[in-house]
Amino acid sequence: MDVFIEPIGRLINEFSKLPGVGKKTAQRYAYKIIGMTDTEAKQFAESIIYCKQRVKYCKICGNFTEDDTCAICKSRDKGTICVVKEPKDVIAMEKLHEFKGVYHVLHGVISPMDGVGPNDIRIKELLARIDDSVQEVIMATNPDVEGEATAMYIARLLKPLGVNVTRLAHGIPVGSELEYTDEVTLSRALLERKQI
Amino acid sequence: MDVFIEPIGRLINEFSKLPGVGKKTAQRYAYKIIGMTDTEAKQFAESIIYCKQRVKYCKICGNFTEDDTCAICKSRDKGTICVVKEPKDVIAMEKLHEFKGVYHVLHGVISPMDGVGPNDIRIKELLARIDDSVQEVIMATNPDVEGEATAMYIARLLKPLGVNVTRLAHGIPVGSELEYTDEVTLSRALLERKQI
Repeated sequence: MDVFIEPIGRLINEFSKLPGVGKKTAQRYAYKIIGMTDTEAKQFAESIIYCKQRVKYCKICGNFTEDDTCAICKSRDKGTICVVKEPKDVIAMEKLHEFKGVYHVLHGVISPMDGVGPNDIRIKELLARIDDSVQEVIMATNPDVEGEATAMYIARLLKPLGVNVTRLAHGIPVGSELEYTDEVTLSRALLERKQI
Repeated sequence: MDVFIEPIGRLINEFSKLPGVGKKTAQRYAYKIIGMTDTEAKQFAESIIYCKQRVKYCKICGNFTEDDTCAICKSRDKGTICVVKEPKDVIAMEKLHEFKGVYHVLHGVISPMDGVGPNDIRIKELLARIDDSVQEVIMATNPDVEGEATAMYIARLLKPLGVNVTRLAHGIPVGSELEYTDEVTLSRALLERKQI
């Protein structure tokens, strides 16, 4: 006899597919669902279907949107394009309420180890957006090996087009301690030191 | 402008209802759903509805079941009843593969602070199950204040009926260290020391 009856086992299995969720956590989630009212559980399930059906990618920038083009592309200054790896990076940037330009989501980074080449991510689409109105392209890919390589690759393609290409600054995180900063970051911070 | 578009915001809100899930984790789960294929997302949503529709409580013991009575009540020795707080405690016990009797799920414990009295949990149903065939009732409620009080309360009701009432042993967890055992547990372990 199985420890879990089939419908519970199946739900636990589905919850286990979420990132960072093991059997034990999935069990807790399943118990929570069973403890919900029918209406609550239905609402939960429907929000999954609804989200999956409604959310598309913006035709211009590749960000999450409900329409063909996203609210950012519709309303903001197209003179500055911030290039990020994934739609969630757009959300991280937007939370600052400081950046006033538009985005370009690559949906990945160049990673030969994983078989991802320049044609597998949205680089062509970025080049197509470059015209005289674009003054600056900010490379905001993650500061890891693939992110850096992708930023360099794109910068080399953009520079001949006469665009100003910049990269987010590396350095010591604000509020951290020098003692606990890793060596690579500290060495970058030293190298890129600024006049005060 | 909201940081999240409405369908994503709604899904994040639903995921936040799961135990121990904050905004950040709910976001990660929502991104995972958006990254799934339509079929996968549909299967996920359906497993919630399916689980909620199929899972009922056993008429006899109150455990999770798909039929009127659960597989344990149908097939096992009714001479020993293990009393637990919630269906998930049945699963914890069943994982041992050692207990051969049946269960009784109280669906709560007596807790005057939360307004839960003896009539709010399944004590009447337990008393109704006691007949000559029952040799032992094992109180396996949690070892906290409410769990202990509930175990004592039920034991007092059962003893006049001539049933042997036992309680799970308290003591030092196997594999732990004396140094790190809390004082209450250590004092219980000392009090309930056994001849070797």
